[in-house]
This record gives sequence, structure tokens and C-alpha cells, in this order.
Amino acid sequence: MLEILYIIAITVEAMSGAIAAGKKQMDPFGILIIACVTAFGGGTLRDLVLDNHPLVWVGRPDFLIITCSAALLIILVRPWIKYLTEAFLVLDAIGLITFSIIGAQKTLQLGHSYLIASIMAVFTGAFGGVIRDILCNQVPLVFRKELYGSISFLAAWMFLGLTMTSLSMTACIVMTLITGFALRILAITMNLELPKFNFDDQNKKG
Amino acid sequence: MLEILYIIAITVEAMSGAIAAGKKQMDPFGILIIACVTAFGGGTLRDLVLDNHPLVWVGRPDFLIITCSAALLIILVRPWIKYLTEAFLVLDAIGLITFSIIGAQKTLQLGHSYLIASIMAVFTGAFGGVIRDILCNQVPLVFRKELYGSISFLAAWMFLGLTMTSLSMTACIVMTLITGFALRILAITMNLELPKFNFDDQNKKG
Amino acid sequence: MLEILYIIAITVEAMSGAIAAGKKQMDPFGILIIACVTAFGGGTLRDLVLDNHPLVWVGRPDFLIITCSAALLIILVRPWIKYLTEAFLVLDAIGLITFSIIGAQKTLQLGHSYLIASIMAVFTGAFGGVIRDILCNQVPLVFRKELYGSISFLAAWMFLGLTMTSLSMTACIVMTLITGFALRILAITMNLELPKFNFDDQNKKG
Repeated sequence: MLEILYIIAITVEAMSGAIAAGKKQMDPFGILIIACVTAFGGGTLRDLVLDNHPLVWVGRPDFLIITCSAALLIILVRPWIKYLTEAFLVLDAIGLITFSIIGAQKTLQLGHSYLIASIMAVFTGAFGGVIRDILCNQVPLVFRKELYGSISFLAAWMFLGLTMTSLSMTACIVMTLITGFALRILAITMNLELPKFNFDDQNKKG
Repeated sequence: MLEILYIIAITVEAMSGAIAAGKKQMDPFGILIIACVTAFGGGTLRDLVLDNHPLVWVGRPDFLIITCSAALLIILVRPWIKYLTEAFLVLDAIGLITFSIIGAQKTLQLGHSYLIASIMAVFTGAFGGVIRDILCNQVPLVFRKELYGSISFLAAWMFLGLTMTSLSMTACIVMTLITGFALRILAITMNLELPKFNFDDQNKKG
Repeated sequence: MLEILYIIAITVEAMSGAIAAGKKQMDPFGILIIACVTAFGGGTLRDLVLDNHPLVWVGRPDFLIITCSAALLIILVRPWIKYLTEAFLVLDAIGLITFSIIGAQKTLQLGHSYLIASIMAVFTGAFGGVIRDILCNQVPLVFRKELYGSISFLAAWMFLGLTMTSLSMTACIVMTLITGFALRILAITMNLELPKFNFDDQNKKG
């Protein structure tokens, strides 16, 4: 089941990358690269940091073909993208939680602590989008808007907590997915954000 | 022969990095760093992703001295750089194809598939410039202008195709270099670009 | 002694990251991430490049708790930050030299040359700030202003030179710290910068 969810997740992330690249007037080659980087960037960063080789997409090139196809599809259907924004947000929420669960699980399997596992969940879930925004020359959205990284973090701890109970792995995954998904949709619909603080520049105040 | 071409390639890439850094009003220390990052960034990314250690410049510090010298030369001759733009484009085209061939060849030697080899060719050839542009806070040029990454990709597949024939390695390299170089010069002189698409922002349209 | 200095260094770097993130209107989650990236980014880059695993913060999660606490403290005391600018510059100078010494020392221990050790000193000392600036979408300050990376480089060579004498390691560290710190404070108070050059864009001149 995780594999199916993983394929949905990389497909959606690739599409979000392709849309961001297209809005920056990139050519098809740039769009393909940004799509792949968005889909695999978080997991790549996690595996580099944990020295876990080969990387997912190096070992499974078929996943690359899926993300490239998703990006090409976005180029083809670009006039209708604006009607699909809500569908994307829903799919992206599934992708975020899936990536977070996979990131936490893989890190545990490599013998690391729960704290590192929860951080790697956020790397896997949110850092594809961070790298996408850096390549598109924007302050990463994840750090500024909506409960995104923090929901990834919460979902990771919920999943880690559930694995300590006697529940089956499938039950842990399903419960985390439903709760995380609900939280994320709630955050979007209620426009929830963490509070932001005023760090006045000394010069402006002076 | 590849070693000579490689030295030309890192020299040219270092110079292009130094020029970009100078235009951003960086100090000599920043210029040196950007020059080295532009020259070695693509190969470093490739070797990190493939877990191929030691990195080229860690194992061969003499290459670092070459790129630093190239950057210092650029600082010295800066008033005349504007008369050399065309010479740079020609040298950069040689660098791009050389890096692509080396990237593809090294990846094959590590036992990876042709698909991964062609992707690593693009990493090696084009990502030094991507990292340069990120450090200079620009949307990477490679993703937006001219046939650059796509020529790297084509050259890689041509090289990989030729190695499957009975031709000697030298013949494969020379033929790929000449064809790739010609394509790149053609792209520059005819101002060829891949088509770009209009991803209208929903809000602007609304 | 190096461990105490190291803890001071990551604390100060985390605070500088938290302040930069706060000024970019990031939410608390973004502030925590930028704080940790600023504190550990330079060392992480060094260890990835040298293939030295596990990374410091993966092996010592207690260090992560220190940097997160430092970032939370900054959020709490933000109205008073503007009165502490000078204290930060002093602490940051200590952090820079400490990171540089640690970076050089670790690289030597891994069996690399003095040249690579001095480069890794700059990576460790200055690249946390570079990654912070990239994530905050700014041209890295290190490449443009003040003698920062270059003092890291000088301190590394002074330390490497001293280790070749008969002095004890503690003496080498203390002498490098004092000299490097004095140089950095001198650079700040006298507003010293390396000269910058005029790379006119051809189009503007034309």
C-alpha cells in the first residue's frame, strides 16, 4: 500500500514542480528537471544525510519515468490547470503525509532515534518543495505559509507513537494518513497559520 | 585526451563563475568560491548522488589551483572581458560537452544504467551553472534560456549510443564532441530555444 | 575546551539564523529549521563532501535540542534583539574561528591535505551562513561583505602552521582563537572589506 501511495505522492509533487517551473517561464527541459527535483529532492536529501545508498531514483529509474510523464501531462493540460487547484491541494496533502510516514519509517529501519526519524519525516515531506522554491528563486513557501512542515512533523510523531502500540503497521499508516490529511485540509480551509513575529530591522526603527 | 579537455572545461567554467560573481559585486574571496563551485559543483553533485568518493577536487587539489588561477586571471583582465564574450561561448560549449561525456562515462563505470548515465551527464555538464546562479540569487539560466541542458542530454545519448558500436573510445569522444559542439554553436547563433508555455496565474486571469 | 566552544558556536549561529528567518516573516517552524541549518549546515556540507558519517547532529541529537532552544529564546526576546547586535557580532566572531579550527582539525584527522583542511575550515565556518542566506533568498553576505570567509581561511592556515610546531594542541587553539577573533573584530570596527571590482555588463556599456 505504501508503494501505491508513494507513486501518488511523487506524481503530485512532480506536477506541483512543473506548475511552479512553468510559471517562471522555464522551458520544457527546466520543467522536467524541477518536476523531478520536487518529487525526489526531499528523499534524496534524507538519504544523503543518512548515507543511505543507492538513492531511490538511482535504484528505481522507473520512478523517474513516472515523474517525467506527470510533468509532460502538466504541459499538455496547462490551460485547465487553474480549474484543478483544489484537487491538487487534496492530492498534495496525501503526498505530504505519505512522504512523512515513509521518511520516518526508513530512518527507523536504518537504526536511528525517534527524534532523527521525525526530522527526516519533515525532510522527506517538505524539502522537495523547499528545493523547488530555491531553484525558482523564491523564499520557500514552507517556511512562511500554512501549517505544512509542522503537520509533517506532527504526523511523524503520531506514526512513531502508534508503532509503539500493538497495532498492525497497516493500521498505523492508515490512522496517521487520515489524521494528517484531515489536519492539513483543516489548515487549508480555515487558512490556519502559525503566528508570525515582528523582528523589526534596527535601521527601520532607529 | 579527456584530461586535457577536462582541464579546459573546469578553467572555462571557473571563469564564467568569476564573471557572474564579479557582476554581483562580490569580493575576491567570493569570486574564488563561486569560480570553484561553478567548475566542480556539477561533478560534486554527481559524485554525492552516486556515493563516489573521494570527490574529484578532494583527491586532486591541483585542479583547485587551476580554477583559482583562472578566477584571479579574470579579476586581472576584467576591463577586457566584454571583448571576449564570443570566445567564452565557444570554450563554454567545449566544456559543456566534455563534462557531459565524462559524467556519462564515470556513471557507466560505476555500474549504473544508461538512463542514470544520461541524467548524470546533465548534472555534470549543467549543474555547476545552476549552483552558480543559485549562489548569485538568480533563477538558473539553464532552465530558461537556450538549448543547454538539452544539448548535454542529447550529447550523452549520442556518446552512449556510439559506445555500443565497435568504434574506439577516442572516436566516440571526438564524434560526440564535434556534434555536440556544433549543435551548441548552432543554438547560440540561431538563438534557438525550446518553446515556453504560458502558465497563467489564476489570480491574474480571474 | 573545543566542545564548549563548539556549543557556543552552534548556539550563536542558531540565533543568527533565527533572527534572519524572523526578519523574512517566517513562522516558528521555519525559524527553527533555518536556525538548525545555519548552525549545522557548514559542518554537514563538510562531512557530506568528505563522506564522514554519521553527521554530527545525526549522531548527537542533544546538539539539535540546544539549537532549537536557542531559536525559541530568540523568538521570546525578539523585542530586545536590537540592543544586542554588538554582543552577537562578538559571539559570532568566536563561533567563526571555532568552526574553522574544528573544520581544519577534523579534515586532517581524516587524512586529507592541508589545502583541503583549509578549504573545509571555510566550509565549516562560513557555509552555514551561506545556506541561511540562500534559504532566505539573499545573495550570501559572506561573498560580499566584510572579511569573513577570508578570516576563516587565514585562521585555518595559522592553526595548521601552529600544529607543525612543538606547541601543545591547546596552545595552538588558544593562539588561533585570539588572533582570529582580534582580526574579525578589527574588520568589523574598521569596516574593512576586500576591494570589489567593476564588472560592467556589456549591454549597459554598449
